[in-house]
Amino acid sequence: MSTAKTINLKNRPKGKPGLSDFNFTTSEVSELKDGEVLLQLTYVSVDPYLRGRMMDAESYIEPFELNKPIVSGCVAEVLESKASDLSSGDFVTGMLQWKEQQVANADNLKKVNPDQAPLSAYLGILGMTGLTAYFGLTDIGKPEAGETLLVSGAAGAVGTVVGQIGKILGMRVVGIAGSDEKIEMITSDFGYDEGINYKTTENMKQAIAKACPDGVDVYYDNVGGEISEAVLYNINKFSRTVVCGAISVYNKIELPKSTSVQPFLIKKSSSMQGFVIFDYKDRHPEGIRQLADWLQNGKLHYEETIQEGFDNIPQAFLDLFEGKNKGKMLVKV
Amino acid sequence: MSTAKTINLKNRPKGKPGLSDFNFTTSEVSELKDGEVLLQLTYVSVDPYLRGRMMDAESYIEPFELNKPIVSGCVAEVLESKASDLSSGDFVTGMLQWKEQQVANADNLKKVNPDQAPLSAYLGILGMTGLTAYFGLTDIGKPEAGETLLVSGAAGAVGTVVGQIGKILGMRVVGIAGSDEKIEMITSDFGYDEGINYKTTENMKQAIAKACPDGVDVYYDNVGGEISEAVLYNINKFSRTVVCGAISVYNKIELPKSTSVQPFLIKKSSSMQGFVIFDYKDRHPEGIRQLADWLQNGKLHYEETIQEGFDNIPQAFLDLFEGKNKGKMLVKV
Repeated sequence: MSTAKTINLKNRPKGKPGLSDFNFTTSEVSELKDGEVLLQLTYVSVDPYLRGRMMDAESYIEPFELNKPIVSGCVAEVLESKASDLSSGDFVTGMLQWKEQQVANADNLKKVNPDQAPLSAYLGILGMTGLTAYFGLTDIGKPEAGETLLVSGAAGAVGTVVGQIGKILGMRVVGIAGSDEKIEMITSDFGYDEGINYKTTENMKQAIAKACPDGVDVYYDNVGGEISEAVLYNINKFSRTVVCGAISVYNKIELPKSTSVQPFLIKKSSSMQGFVIFDYKDRHPEGIRQLADWLQNGKLHYEETIQEGFDNIPQAFLDLFEGKNKGKMLVKV
Repeated sequence: MSTAKTINLKNRPKGKPGLSDFNFTTSEVSELKDGEVLLQLTYVSVDPYLRGRMMDAESYIEPFELNKPIVSGCVAEVLESKASDLSSGDFVTGMLQWKEQQVANADNLKKVNPDQAPLSAYLGILGMTGLTAYFGLTDIGKPEAGETLLVSGAAGAVGTVVGQIGKILGMRVVGIAGSDEKIEMITSDFGYDEGINYKTTENMKQAIAKACPDGVDVYYDNVGGEISEAVLYNINKFSRTVVCGAISVYNKIELPKSTSVQPFLIKKSSSMQGFVIFDYKDRHPEGIRQLADWLQNGKLHYEETIQEGFDNIPQAFLDLFEGKNKGKMLVKV
């Protein structure tokens, strides 16, 4: 029986995670059964939401088990197959373990075409990232041409796609990000009409009011925390907040307090709705079709930050919280 | 030109309002013009949301002007009419000034039938209160038979109606209120399956979990604050929070901080939506029809607390924040 290098969750991080929260082991690769395939990891996606899954039961996302491999979206190559619809040499995506080689049930995998788009795109613009942007904005945000869309975490993987879809749909699009370089990127490369660098802005409430003179109709929230508090003062009547992420609170030991949202929601007859992309499982093909169409017509661009080497997966994950990524953060194994 | 006793907002209350925030004046009753009627107040509705309107511009509800009469929902009798569709002796409802006699435009009034229901009902179960319960629960809460409905402020004007509609629709209904007497009332008189006295409960998070063993599908929130924080830990996947009121924060000088809702909304793909009853203006007739139907079939009961005398309006308003009302609080002029 063969073995493979594996990255496990060693400790539940207190506050900001560190390398010592992970450990490397060598674990068995089980025997192939009918319906299963042996996979070699190709690309591993590291995402802020994984931080939530590292917390324990009182947390707000189903936790990873300690001393078990971490799981995230991956692209892998099929090395051996006992599944009828997959053959050696095929590439697939799925939620896979951080384990160089592993056996997986073919039912939980989706075959992807490396000729249609680069393999990494299936973890980004044509994967969870793109679908999260697409369904969050279109289904929850209910955007209308001429409305104002504000996006936090605008230079991140999801944010860069949200802004572009907003422009395709005819909205005024304003982004919030954490460096002048990122603001330059979202306005130059991703079509944002305007950007706000929250790290150099003293009064976010006023800055948002200035950048959104007609108020905010749709707020696509990737960060939560203080930025989202400032947004509350600028939402329009019947506005919609798409609650996609809360990276600003993922590293907090206790959930932080923030200004109560309820009085704002009442005053503005406004809604906030959370979601995870799995809610739209049945509609993924529709989303991929639309995104691929925009991509092929040159209406969508994407950026990715690719680090190399299986051993660097934990560091790549940690780098997310330092804002070191532009667009989707991936590790090429 | 005649004059009438008027109650004005004297100060913007800091914290809890007091009698000194109001003053009584005698002000002119203007001449009747075409399309107008001269009214005599019959019943005045005092409501928690008025507290929000007493705050100034940075507040979250359009403010009342200082030294101008306060306005709330009222029933009044037509004394004289220059409007084609109203005659002396008719009764109307509308947003009227706290002024014993006043002139109003007939377009902003709705004639009510004193033979169909007691006049006070048009400020309660067949008025804003009933409609707020009805549209909030049915349109935003999207209730399904068999689901669990949790109501805060359950013994209040809106809460007693919400609970009964929940039962009519086949839900398990749990209420939160502030005294054993109120809990007894909601379970005995208003059909609630269970009640939680938040004043005598140490751990609200656990108490809610116990009273709602299948979790909370719809939370009809009349209070905000700490109670609503405890509810967050008990919401189900795809649950809906109807943000109707936030009485617990209306008297705060600064908006309070509370646990960030975003992580919970993400984890549970859950929504929170605020509203005011004016959003449903076009659908009021539908709501009144349904409520009147339930009322006539004995499926809806209502309770009201009626104080007497124009001069007692401010005190009746203050009594709301002491929880002295059961059901709708009114003043008979």
